[in-house]
Amino acid sequence: MEEENELALPAKENFSEWYNDILVKAEIMDVRYPVKGLYVWNPFGFSIRKKTYSIIRELLDRDHEETLFPLLIPENEFMKETKHIKGFEEEVYWVTHGGTSPLEVNLALRPTSETAIYPIYKLWVRSHADLPIKYYQIVNTFRYETKHTRPLIRLREITSFKEAHTVHETWEDAAAQVDEAIDRYHEFYERLCLPVLTSKRPEWDKFPGADYTIAVDALMPDGRTLQVGTAHHLGNNFAKTFDIEYEDPNGEQVYAYQSCYGISERCIAAMISVHGDDKGLILPPEIAPVQVIIIPIIFKNKDKESILDACKNVKGSLESAGVKTKIDTSDRRPGAKYYRWEMKGVPLRIEIGPKDLKNESVMMVRRDTGDKEQIAMDEINDTVASKFESIKSNLYEKAKAELENNIIECDSLDEIENKIVKGILKIPWCGQEECNDELEENIGAGILGIPVNQENSSSSPCPVCGGEANTKIYVSRTY
Amino acid sequence: MEEENELALPAKENFSEWYNDILVKAEIMDVRYPVKGLYVWNPFGFSIRKKTYSIIRELLDRDHEETLFPLLIPENEFMKETKHIKGFEEEVYWVTHGGTSPLEVNLALRPTSETAIYPIYKLWVRSHADLPIKYYQIVNTFRYETKHTRPLIRLREITSFKEAHTVHETWEDAAAQVDEAIDRYHEFYERLCLPVLTSKRPEWDKFPGADYTIAVDALMPDGRTLQVGTAHHLGNNFAKTFDIEYEDPNGEQVYAYQSCYGISERCIAAMISVHGDDKGLILPPEIAPVQVIIIPIIFKNKDKESILDACKNVKGSLESAGVKTKIDTSDRRPGAKYYRWEMKGVPLRIEIGPKDLKNESVMMVRRDTGDKEQIAMDEINDTVASKFESIKSNLYEKAKAELENNIIECDSLDEIENKIVKGILKIPWCGQEECNDELEENIGAGILGIPVNQENSSSSPCPVCGGEANTKIYVSRTY
Repeated sequence: MEEENELALPAKENFSEWYNDILVKAEIMDVRYPVKGLYVWNPFGFSIRKKTYSIIRELLDRDHEETLFPLLIPENEFMKETKHIKGFEEEVYWVTHGGTSPLEVNLALRPTSETAIYPIYKLWVRSHADLPIKYYQIVNTFRYETKHTRPLIRLREITSFKEAHTVHETWEDAAAQVDEAIDRYHEFYERLCLPVLTSKRPEWDKFPGADYTIAVDALMPDGRTLQVGTAHHLGNNFAKTFDIEYEDPNGEQVYAYQSCYGISERCIAAMISVHGDDKGLILPPEIAPVQVIIIPIIFKNKDKESILDACKNVKGSLESAGVKTKIDTSDRRPGAKYYRWEMKGVPLRIEIGPKDLKNESVMMVRRDTGDKEQIAMDEINDTVASKFESIKSNLYEKAKAELENNIIECDSLDEIENKIVKGILKIPWCGQEECNDELEENIGAGILGIPVNQENSSSSPCPVCGGEANTKIYVSRTY
Repeated sequence: MEEENELALPAKENFSEWYNDILVKAEIMDVRYPVKGLYVWNPFGFSIRKKTYSIIRELLDRDHEETLFPLLIPENEFMKETKHIKGFEEEVYWVTHGGTSPLEVNLALRPTSETAIYPIYKLWVRSHADLPIKYYQIVNTFRYETKHTRPLIRLREITSFKEAHTVHETWEDAAAQVDEAIDRYHEFYERLCLPVLTSKRPEWDKFPGADYTIAVDALMPDGRTLQVGTAHHLGNNFAKTFDIEYEDPNGEQVYAYQSCYGISERCIAAMISVHGDDKGLILPPEIAPVQVIIIPIIFKNKDKESILDACKNVKGSLESAGVKTKIDTSDRRPGAKYYRWEMKGVPLRIEIGPKDLKNESVMMVRRDTGDKEQIAMDEINDTVASKFESIKSNLYEKAKAELENNIIECDSLDEIENKIVKGILKIPWCGQEECNDELEENIGAGILGIPVNQENSSSSPCPVCGGEANTKIYVSRTY
């Protein structure tokens, strides 16, 4: 039972411990790197990252192009946009020395790349005919976090920041691009079987230097929200600072409008957290590095060769259909093998023993539901394909119900205080920042955002100040 | 003729200007980033990078796994290996501040990742059963270069460093891994149609902290060599420093042996430089972001619709065979289109005009030779496939002849001085570093390395000191 104990997880209801443990035991990250907030991607975790980000690339490559800009931003460029730098000044890492000598100009490690990219956009944007420009990059970015750090969630090196930066002729074009980005993010999260909630951030929480920010949030198992994607309308604020002008059809030089939008490895944190259970990861088939694990069931070497042959045949047949399949031929007992691959989130397990051999069938076990079913050998490929579909929709529907059931309408402070631990509250709001501050102080939850594309008019008063409330907003505890 | 002039390149025999120009005009890099030694990957350049690195991944994924370690290395870890740090201390960028406060421990931007990875390998390596470990990562690394920087060749941010780090039971296993790495690099460079020369670096030029270094070099058009890959036998030097021990089959704790090997975006610099010509890039089909460009030849709108339909049909048919195809429907004249796509290195051009339509054929033009051939419509897919093969072997053979013809045996100082501008000299050597220093001082060329797997015994004396020479070595001017 050694293996099982090593792989035992805290119950998922103790979410924080469960989360820290599963990252290590499922071999996603090694958390022992000797600097706070920096972590190592294990090969297994890295292949999850690779599959996840290949979906992002696939979706963006439809109409974006991938580029790569430098990590190091000279202090003078970085300091140009006043609001922007105000938002980041406490979080920036500075390179001050090259070798043993001080640098002439200090270099910031990008916390995000506006100030690296836009001086070049100034050179690239010439005429309205060049627009829109839609480029993205997937890079490491850095934040000197003084708060409690947490793997994949709050990092000093964000290893996997996908940031897109677009340039448009008009404010409206940039606004349409922000909406399109959010749609693309929903599509992306559907591929991870993860419904997300869209809202417009309140003024005080928008991206520094932006006109407004729309964000998508996932609901984590502890009832807190995790911001897993943002899209910012930059107006022509950065264009004015970095002098990004184009010649319009009348021959006039005008400032361009811009948007930018980003996703980080938090997408993986949310996926793991929402789907996983007390036994370990549950991965959507499209993300799983191993999609089917085959376990030969051999007692006292009975039918050993024929069983192993049958395993190989099934593997060959599945792989020819593009299914990533592995046979576990290790010395472990079958039970220990089950634990191990359940921890790794493999969507389907196939067991083949002497009885199965005789019946020309296999036992197929779903990771998400635990359902077992006897499947005829010659139906395995079709069955695997249809089970994958079913797992995908089951994961999505379950997560969707979880999200929807935990968006709770509240009208009074008492209610808010009682229900905030469950998830996201929808409450009337008077529009004043002070009411948000009071909420944060008293219940540790603040305004997440204003619902987008949803009924949000209110007839009740603001539960904080009692003043008139025209809109409803989401309130949550956040990461 | 505006377009042609804009795209005109200096003749390739003026290599340095040609190189700087082609990177910009073919839209590989933008060199206007406001920090010395840092450059921007244009989308077109980035897609070349993507294709190139997907070959590296394919070759390594056979028996390696991909990981990702942090960029920032704490000073105390970085300073542990004395020889290693000596080799890098003048080149390391230091992060000293987070926000407005000084850090407690300064952080190095990795110049290479031994000191980031090996403290974790200490935790991962337990038993001989865990070995060998073969992991790699593709990351940005940093060198504070004080010499003249040059895009893709001498960088302050190496954006695309593939570094593999392996752990073995014995010195011999690690040595075998070094050989295997070099074989894999040859395979990689063959895919880029680029023959490379293998040699063992002299003692003073090996990787700081290694037992020995084997390198592969490309011969650039100006006769200088460019180191495009290195593999290092680390002995158990780093294992002793970082305490990487395993339990051997007898239950004893012993230090592990290690190797590491790297390739950077210099591979792209060499590929561009060796294959390109006065008209621009010549890309191997496997690397070309656009593999076939179709140019409709339309005069005064004659047969316009039918020609465009024919272009679309050809594109559809090629794409269904997996060939990346584009139709240039811009307003430019056909000649201007030719220039543009020749600059971009597209391996094959297909022209379709009224005559071709009538003959149910197309005109097919090879980028590498300029050869034109009429091809029947229904033979296009097969012809493209066979032309790709032929382009590939033509590029490789041409580059191989160029390399072989410019490895010149020399016995005297006079000869060395006269012939060094042509390429790589093979000369007798007495074994003394002083003779290398004298060569460097007098003719600006030094010992590249000792030939590997080649006849290199000598009967002539060392041409520098006149002393007895047992071996022959390569001498070249290097980047």
